[in-house]
Amino acid sequence: MLSIERLREEIEKGIGELAFKREPFGLYEPIEYSMSLGGKRLRPVMCLAACSLFTDNYEKAMSAALAIEMFHNFTLLHDDVMDKADIRRNQPTVVAKWDANTAILSGDEMLIESYKLLAKTDCPAFSLVMSTFSETATEVCEGQQYDMDFETRDNVSLEEYMEMIRLKTAVLLGCAMKIGALIGGGNARDTENLYKYSIDLGLAFQLQDDLLDTFGDEKTFGKAIGGDIMENKKTYLLISAMQMANAEQKDELTKWLGDADAPREQKVAAVKAIFEATGAKKATEAKMEQLYEKAMMTLREMDISAEGKRFFADFGDKLMKRKR
Amino acid sequence: MLSIERLREEIEKGIGELAFKREPFGLYEPIEYSMSLGGKRLRPVMCLAACSLFTDNYEKAMSAALAIEMFHNFTLLHDDVMDKADIRRNQPTVVAKWDANTAILSGDEMLIESYKLLAKTDCPAFSLVMSTFSETATEVCEGQQYDMDFETRDNVSLEEYMEMIRLKTAVLLGCAMKIGALIGGGNARDTENLYKYSIDLGLAFQLQDDLLDTFGDEKTFGKAIGGDIMENKKTYLLISAMQMANAEQKDELTKWLGDADAPREQKVAAVKAIFEATGAKKATEAKMEQLYEKAMMTLREMDISAEGKRFFADFGDKLMKRKR
Repeated sequence: MLSIERLREEIEKGIGELAFKREPFGLYEPIEYSMSLGGKRLRPVMCLAACSLFTDNYEKAMSAALAIEMFHNFTLLHDDVMDKADIRRNQPTVVAKWDANTAILSGDEMLIESYKLLAKTDCPAFSLVMSTFSETATEVCEGQQYDMDFETRDNVSLEEYMEMIRLKTAVLLGCAMKIGALIGGGNARDTENLYKYSIDLGLAFQLQDDLLDTFGDEKTFGKAIGGDIMENKKTYLLISAMQMANAEQKDELTKWLGDADAPREQKVAAVKAIFEATGAKKATEAKMEQLYEKAMMTLREMDISAEGKRFFADFGDKLMKRKR
Repeated sequence: MLSIERLREEIEKGIGELAFKREPFGLYEPIEYSMSLGGKRLRPVMCLAACSLFTDNYEKAMSAALAIEMFHNFTLLHDDVMDKADIRRNQPTVVAKWDANTAILSGDEMLIESYKLLAKTDCPAFSLVMSTFSETATEVCEGQQYDMDFETRDNVSLEEYMEMIRLKTAVLLGCAMKIGALIGGGNARDTENLYKYSIDLGLAFQLQDDLLDTFGDEKTFGKAIGGDIMENKKTYLLISAMQMANAEQKDELTKWLGDADAPREQKVAAVKAIFEATGAKKATEAKMEQLYEKAMMTLREMDISAEGKRFFADFGDKLMKRKR
């Protein structure tokens, strides 16, 4: 199997070959811009990797991998309009660089382009590939809807939060691997196991993201720490803290949540301290570990090559050790 | 062949059977609302009609017809966000009834749903059906982009305007008929002719729309006359008037276009008078007639049943005689 780095190079090459230098420029330039901003390319890389578990010809999954990356970037364009986000990957978002209408319409075209890329896939399981992609796309929209719904709700449970991040984040990684495996010729059992592995890993990844947003190192994280805290975002950390807090801690946390004018430094420091004192940080880390272990267990039980197992174990390991 | 009315009933029944009463309600309720608002259902009806030219089993095209209608309604949701439109079909738009984020996300889901519906199609030409749909979807986005670009341009030509409405309006009717014909088993020549017919008819339809917006009867048109005039919209009427006006007429027209505070009644009456005096109204009517005649000529030359020809001739005739 090729290394993650080599697969990423293949993906970058594939993205570079997508031609969006055409009229109307107002529609296609933002697509070119968004796709060229980089990022980890986790999903398309894992799509190719999953394919190469079952065939040497991993290029068979290239257009599907690009479809997944295109779809992912489409969601970013629209999410950034909905969240009024200015910065992504240290660069201005499309909505900030152009405007909301541009982000909406170019995003729409990216969703269409993702289906066009997917349609280039030539494999016996094509209709299953298509339905997996569409079902996942719907789940991602549902996840975004729950995420928005949670903003105005006071009683979000940990279970609801986990289900939201499953839909909004994990299923697309799962879809990438499942589709890659299907194109490679994996059987139903292997592809389902790979899906299970990547869902648990995706959930662990999101909890890691929440932890980094609050407890990460500003220098390596790449953006300001405490964004979730400042937005009162109902993460696993906050929901756990509310559940585990004693009366005094609860009062203090509630006070910070209700103080719209709280200075950033004080609020972030105080809420972090509460997350630690209540045990919410530990609970989040424990949940993340548990999901990671579950993913590794699924991996160990899979009927694939030792090399393949090592590849996906390394991948999970790297994901969990990341600092950004 | 079934009548247009009967086919429309079939479409309404099909739409009624789409189940969107599920969680998260914030995502699916606007879809249910948008799809239930009615409208002429031109595109899905013509998709079924085109299919039944080649087979008695027009139901084979039902899910594709619903996909087209779903796609059309998706574009309305997003267009209404971009245009900040409050009213559509005499009812509040999704963006007005809910908000922009809702219209964006539910619109996204509708685009995905349209692909899911299309994927239910079972026919030998499936991959051509898919690519026709996706190419058309891209063209519709390009048309919307040009439409927005034109707002800030002063030198839009009649050719550019015609190309914009071809992309924004006509190709989706063309796609509906072409896909219907493909599913029905029509050969390449027949489906291409049907496409040509519907593009010309779609262009005539849009010019008719422009004429009704300015010269229609308020009572039968269903909305206030003069919307395009008040927005200085660069329609065939306005572009022609600018080209055909003498110095005096040009000055007067330019004055009205530049007067942001002009009272509605005066501005509409004055610009209408200029459209008539310059011959722009006549030029638009002539262009519309010419396209309609071209569509009818294509139809006459087609190798389909006399009943089929009569059906599509009646359809074109009704479209041209409509008052709203």
